[in-house]
Amino acid sequence: MPALIYSFDSTRREPLTDEPLDALRERFGGKAVGLIEMTRLGLPVPPGFAISVEAGRALMGPDAAFPDSLRDAVREGLAGVEAATGLRFGDPSAPLLVSVRSGAAASMPGMLDSVLNVGLDSTTRAGLAAQGGARFALDAHRRFLQMFGDVALGVSREVFEQLISATKTRLGSPSMTDAELDEDALAGLVQSFEATLGAKRADLFPGSPQSQLELAIASVYRSWNNVRARRYRALQGISDELGTACVVQAMVFGNRGSRSGAGVAFTRNPSTGERALYGEFLANAQGEDVVAGSRTPSSLTSATAVPGREDRSLERTDPEAFALVQSLADQLETHFRDVQDIEFTVEEGRVYLLQTRSAKRTAEASVRIAVALADEGRASRDEALLMVDANAIATLLRTRLPSPEELLARGVQPVATGLAASPGVAVGRIVFDPEAAERMAAEGQDVLLVRRDTTADDIVAMKGARGILTAAGGLTSHAAVLSRALGKCCVAGASTLHVDYAAGVLTARPRRGSDASPRTFRVGDTLTVDGSTGRVYEGALDVVAASTLPELDTLLAWADERRHMGVRANADTPRDVRAAQAFGAEGIGLCRTEHMFFADERLAALRCVVLASEESERERWVGRIEAMQRGDFEEIFHAMAGHPVTIRLLDLPLHEFMPRDDASLAAVAAGLSVPLREAKRRAGARAEVNPMIGHRGVRVGLTIPAIYRAQIRAVLSAAVAVARSGKGVFPELLVPLTAVGEEVRRVAEAVRAIAEEVFTEQGARVAYKVGTMIELPRACLVAGDMAQHVEFFSFGTNDLTQTAFGISRDDSAHFLPAYVDELGVLPQNPFRTLDIVGVGELIQLAITRGRAANPTLELGVCGAQGGEARSIQFFAEQGVDYVSCSLTRLVVARLATAQAALRLAGHPRGGALAG
Amino acid sequence: MPALIYSFDSTRREPLTDEPLDALRERFGGKAVGLIEMTRLGLPVPPGFAISVEAGRALMGPDAAFPDSLRDAVREGLAGVEAATGLRFGDPSAPLLVSVRSGAAASMPGMLDSVLNVGLDSTTRAGLAAQGGARFALDAHRRFLQMFGDVALGVSREVFEQLISATKTRLGSPSMTDAELDEDALAGLVQSFEATLGAKRADLFPGSPQSQLELAIASVYRSWNNVRARRYRALQGISDELGTACVVQAMVFGNRGSRSGAGVAFTRNPSTGERALYGEFLANAQGEDVVAGSRTPSSLTSATAVPGREDRSLERTDPEAFALVQSLADQLETHFRDVQDIEFTVEEGRVYLLQTRSAKRTAEASVRIAVALADEGRASRDEALLMVDANAIATLLRTRLPSPEELLARGVQPVATGLAASPGVAVGRIVFDPEAAERMAAEGQDVLLVRRDTTADDIVAMKGARGILTAAGGLTSHAAVLSRALGKCCVAGASTLHVDYAAGVLTARPRRGSDASPRTFRVGDTLTVDGSTGRVYEGALDVVAASTLPELDTLLAWADERRHMGVRANADTPRDVRAAQAFGAEGIGLCRTEHMFFADERLAALRCVVLASEESERERWVGRIEAMQRGDFEEIFHAMAGHPVTIRLLDLPLHEFMPRDDASLAAVAAGLSVPLREAKRRAGARAEVNPMIGHRGVRVGLTIPAIYRAQIRAVLSAAVAVARSGKGVFPELLVPLTAVGEEVRRVAEAVRAIAEEVFTEQGARVAYKVGTMIELPRACLVAGDMAQHVEFFSFGTNDLTQTAFGISRDDSAHFLPAYVDELGVLPQNPFRTLDIVGVGELIQLAITRGRAANPTLELGVCGAQGGEARSIQFFAEQGVDYVSCSLTRLVVARLATAQAALRLAGHPRGGALAG
Repeated sequence: MPALIYSFDSTRREPLTDEPLDALRERFGGKAVGLIEMTRLGLPVPPGFAISVEAGRALMGPDAAFPDSLRDAVREGLAGVEAATGLRFGDPSAPLLVSVRSGAAASMPGMLDSVLNVGLDSTTRAGLAAQGGARFALDAHRRFLQMFGDVALGVSREVFEQLISATKTRLGSPSMTDAELDEDALAGLVQSFEATLGAKRADLFPGSPQSQLELAIASVYRSWNNVRARRYRALQGISDELGTACVVQAMVFGNRGSRSGAGVAFTRNPSTGERALYGEFLANAQGEDVVAGSRTPSSLTSATAVPGREDRSLERTDPEAFALVQSLADQLETHFRDVQDIEFTVEEGRVYLLQTRSAKRTAEASVRIAVALADEGRASRDEALLMVDANAIATLLRTRLPSPEELLARGVQPVATGLAASPGVAVGRIVFDPEAAERMAAEGQDVLLVRRDTTADDIVAMKGARGILTAAGGLTSHAAVLSRALGKCCVAGASTLHVDYAAGVLTARPRRGSDASPRTFRVGDTLTVDGSTGRVYEGALDVVAASTLPELDTLLAWADERRHMGVRANADTPRDVRAAQAFGAEGIGLCRTEHMFFADERLAALRCVVLASEESERERWVGRIEAMQRGDFEEIFHAMAGHPVTIRLLDLPLHEFMPRDDASLAAVAAGLSVPLREAKRRAGARAEVNPMIGHRGVRVGLTIPAIYRAQIRAVLSAAVAVARSGKGVFPELLVPLTAVGEEVRRVAEAVRAIAEEVFTEQGARVAYKVGTMIELPRACLVAGDMAQHVEFFSFGTNDLTQTAFGISRDDSAHFLPAYVDELGVLPQNPFRTLDIVGVGELIQLAITRGRAANPTLELGVCGAQGGEARSIQFFAEQGVDYVSCSLTRLVVARLATAQAALRLAGHPRGGALAG
Repeated sequence: MPALIYSFDSTRREPLTDEPLDALRERFGGKAVGLIEMTRLGLPVPPGFAISVEAGRALMGPDAAFPDSLRDAVREGLAGVEAATGLRFGDPSAPLLVSVRSGAAASMPGMLDSVLNVGLDSTTRAGLAAQGGARFALDAHRRFLQMFGDVALGVSREVFEQLISATKTRLGSPSMTDAELDEDALAGLVQSFEATLGAKRADLFPGSPQSQLELAIASVYRSWNNVRARRYRALQGISDELGTACVVQAMVFGNRGSRSGAGVAFTRNPSTGERALYGEFLANAQGEDVVAGSRTPSSLTSATAVPGREDRSLERTDPEAFALVQSLADQLETHFRDVQDIEFTVEEGRVYLLQTRSAKRTAEASVRIAVALADEGRASRDEALLMVDANAIATLLRTRLPSPEELLARGVQPVATGLAASPGVAVGRIVFDPEAAERMAAEGQDVLLVRRDTTADDIVAMKGARGILTAAGGLTSHAAVLSRALGKCCVAGASTLHVDYAAGVLTARPRRGSDASPRTFRVGDTLTVDGSTGRVYEGALDVVAASTLPELDTLLAWADERRHMGVRANADTPRDVRAAQAFGAEGIGLCRTEHMFFADERLAALRCVVLASEESERERWVGRIEAMQRGDFEEIFHAMAGHPVTIRLLDLPLHEFMPRDDASLAAVAAGLSVPLREAKRRAGARAEVNPMIGHRGVRVGLTIPAIYRAQIRAVLSAAVAVARSGKGVFPELLVPLTAVGEEVRRVAEAVRAIAEEVFTEQGARVAYKVGTMIELPRACLVAGDMAQHVEFFSFGTNDLTQTAFGISRDDSAHFLPAYVDELGVLPQNPFRTLDIVGVGELIQLAITRGRAANPTLELGVCGAQGGEARSIQFFAEQGVDYVSCSLTRLVVARLATAQAALRLAGHPRGGALAG
């Protein structure tokens, strides 16, 4: 049997086993491996031991017994810690206290439970008091009771908060902080807490540290299945089967007076990527106080202290401890070849490291950091490429507000200013209630989630909201950390704001010293928040286009050197085509000709073609369409000269293009010289119940062949004309919505016949390709048949997902958000990230059959998933030649294709997909 | 190289090769095999030879040269015929004339071309005249020129008809028949016909019989690709690759005077199945005159002569020839063990057989004949089962009109009476134009196609029409034969009707001797026609339920002994369930609970459940639903006691069930105590663009779990209650529209938990099963996952077809008829007959994966294709346990499952699927 525990102890330098770190991570979780690795490096880590994921499985049921084998292992682990510290667990004179913390292989910050100060009862408290004073010992004891009560016995935190409030009121100072509670008050609280818990578990209270430790361990394991953890895993695509490990470690005490405290440090700024230590520190506190956001901590460094307030940073208050932290941070970043997020505790001037992990960061920071680390030689360029979450960099193209100066010049002033916790601009309606926010966001409304502070339960609401605004909490508060991870705009700790949940009112008090009167906003009012400056504005401000980071251009240039797949753009207008080239597209993978018919005149012509009852009438209108389209295609070919341009033949759902209002009907009636009534009748006859799977695509092409004929003529005539001007033209004609080989054969045959006709007329030829969309399940099955008639396939993953699942994308908001976020029925929205199990298998089938029938078949993807990193990885594995995506996803595709190439080549950092 | 030709000659009794008939049929077509077989039996068949399908491939291009090898083979074949007849092809004194006819392996009556009397020019005509007289020879010559001109040179039949009309006018008798044309007139016509053809092909006219023969052969092959043949094959599911063979045979002359003629005989009545020779005969005519319907032939037998008219039947006019025909017919039926459709010619009293084939027959006749042949010992019961087209027998459950006597008693009299050509009742609007009929039928209108007579070009219009009414033509006219094949109601030869195509008016003249005035109807007016009595009525008459044939019950009893698959019914109400039992269902395979909510009160309750914003409100309404549903299920369990009942949990598209009109909205507003405006808002928020792939099925079940919970409780409480009464109850709960394994797991888990709750409450248990619909492509792919959570799969082939093809069934009328009938893109409507290539592969995948994961998994099919014979064959091959279908298709399913079992057991008659 593999060992149930793994001990670490920095007093002994040699590694305890030869087991590689990756294997250890799977068995003992990320937190333990960080601690073990730091221990091996000789850094100051309190001694402790990890208990394996496997050992925890026996504890998962609510009434599961604590196995004897595990009890023995824990005893052995504790013995090691006792030897290293010289303390003994449960010893009244020199008691060892431990923290019991979770630690899964995948990072799930704040989602699982911890219990600190385990080992305290009234007896051992005396021993602790002898070391650090009676008040300190009482404070530690009441903290233990609170956390243990919450985590192990399910007593609501509110119960403890009320008892504390009552004590403060009794003392006549309802607004005093917890740190101001005196010894007597704490002693009273400990007594009433113990009574509360004793009422629930008389066997555990008072006393019995050993039983408390076992229950604490079991509870930490069980927190794997709490609701918020399950939802977080569903959101992040982490398997429920993974399980957590548990870390038991000697306590060090940040709450041991003024030269003590708890802090969090990032080796670089996780918001901007700036190369400077960044973090927060709370004096005379334990770690939970910082993470929970219930007290606002000070900055770690002087440089990032809030301007205009007293600098209470660790750098100023304890330069010696600060220097230690800085040196440790630098060692960790160099060793791990990436930016670290470090938890530490200062105990009476000594610094202890409690955790290190790869830091979550904003997209902007991730790009800057990656390029900087490569430039500094701390990472290779390939490592830098793999360090960035490709999906996240789409946000770097987001819009921004004009600068505060420009706004001021226009008379626009912020109503409040908080911490710039996560960059971006959000315009939305104020919502306080997280459930209401979820619902409104699911309906497509722009929501601004406004809270005093957020908790882990708010994650779904945060995900749906345009932005987050909190009145309390710092840059490492839950709201700030999670916003950055989600790429959401966030302004945190806007302390002049007052949130009255009950009244549904948000009050913005004027700055101190200002003579302005307070402003009030109600739920539903619109605000604009700027997460890059921390400013909050009334109403909806206009936004301007963002400039991209110079580092992003550098990174993408490195990516272009590495990738094998082509990256094309979905673009329908010459303007979009030019923009696509600027964003690095190597061609147009999808030009949707139906989007060229939105102009009134063209729409009317097309309607006349469809609704004509006589062929001569139809031909007249079709002639106009051909002429108009030829002009469109010439412009596009000029704009994309030298690159392939894939033009999809019309895929309009006839139902949706039919005239409904009187003016449109009159236009058709006039165009066809029929009475209005008749035009209405014909349009009515085209009505459909489910237009998405109705009369569209090739079905229209074959039943009204004049339309495709005109388009094919227009494409090829335009190509000949542009080729004559000396430019490279590579037209590719694409047939939409095919389900039957015969559909493909007929259109391909028509294209080749019409091409000969056009080339003869024009006296010149151009090379062209014919392809078919593969966007219906049946098309995947008969791909071998289809491949015989075409030169390329283009996978339309949007429609393929719609039909494989039988889910209309337009209607999916009614249930898909609940499926993904609340119920966890699906790990992710398949319209965003390809469903590899189902839709992916269909694509594999189509590729295997298509290539078997036509070995030179070219393969592209043009659905939304063609611009999503995980999906791109799959496409690369299947041998797809290129992806085509919207303009805003081109940067994602360029990076993700490079990452896929590195992973396929077996790069050691490529094992897991980012984000 | 296999021989290009196969000669047959009844003067030589021994078989010419040992090749089995089935192999011969593939190479030389059905017509040749019939002739060869009759020759082997020593029956009177004019000598001839067949040319193979393979040989014809070289001739398919319009300008293809006639290969030398084929020329040699034809010469060799002709030599044999010359030896047998003592005549010589092209010999001026004793010329051999031949017919050149098509003959594919699959029967395609009237769709391919023939040329008769080949070998005639002005020289050989003299030799023919010497044998049979000058007028006869001239008549044969002008017939040759007409057919050759039409078939080989593409000269419109109208051209010849106009020349004939002009001649008749010149003679002063525009209404004379062709048979009344005298020698001079015929000579003039031959001259002008030759001039017309000579203008097209100077190399062929005058003279050159050898070249004419070769072109005739090539043209017959090429007729395989004419439009009507392609459309017929598309309709009948005959492969375009099959190809036709060609038969060249010595002419015998039905136009050789009054003791000659051409006839068609069925060994039994193809309309009723009656055991009596049945057919038609046209004196002094060639076969084409009978088939084309241009002259109305006489009955073959006295018994079927039209009452009230002179009996000109062959039985009366030439009893000797009639006796010969009768004896030959009996020999053929006995030999082929099936009813035969025979073409024969009487030449001066001698009878020659020109074709025999299995007779097309009405569904009613097919059942009666099959049972009769088995009872008479002419066929085995298994052969009888395989003899009937299972799909066609659904028509035997059609509604009928009250008897003419009953109608008369109500004062309803027919406006016309014709021949009862194909049974059934049709109520529809008069349409003359076949294209208009096609279009209107595709739009779902009830069309009655009214024509003077029909041609092979009208087949699509006939298929779409409710019924066919013709003013001319007999019981073996094109209209009558095809109507029976299509199972369409048809009244033919209603000679008191006058059809004025140009004016759009149908006039019904009173019967001779009546003093009533003529009635006129316009296109668009409604008539009712009764194909069982030949009567035509004004307006839409009420119809009454049909009684089934006693022979059908016999046949189905035989079928029930043979089949292995179960047959269940789709039924939603206790009344339907009782009807299903009467039709032989062995359980309910699909009870759609959404159909139980059509009553206003229930609909309102369900809407309140969906639109409630508070859980308590929802629970109140859900409670009512549970109570109502429990009653429903108790009734259904009682009605189907002893058999399984599959109850599908609610699958309502929320969109469609939302209240829209003010009354419904008011009911919801009252039910939920909210303002009307709010009810409207909530209902509006449920609107969807594509409800068929929207918020329905398990998606509703998981997002509003109270509904399924209530249904599950209702089903299981009802089951316990009925089981208490001592009846056998086998409830099976079915989860609709699942695409994800987790959906299935959750609902299955809920069912098992709720079952325990109900059984505890009720103090008793029942056995039950949980299953999932497999009706989305993704479900097929993840079937292995789903199968772990359930006991059975039910394939919903309607939805699976919709999503595999991406075709909304509700909207498919816009293009699917064109795809199948006009364009031939699809061989059949996949919503009627399972698409085996695509949807079938998905089903195979699901079965393989499902059974691998759960070897005891039960498999059912509940879509429309579960009641269709070809689809049932496929399901049987895949090991499906039962099919479930609508009440009207139960008889089809019972027979088709038996046929499938026989075919799977390798029954020699089971090779090809019927019709």
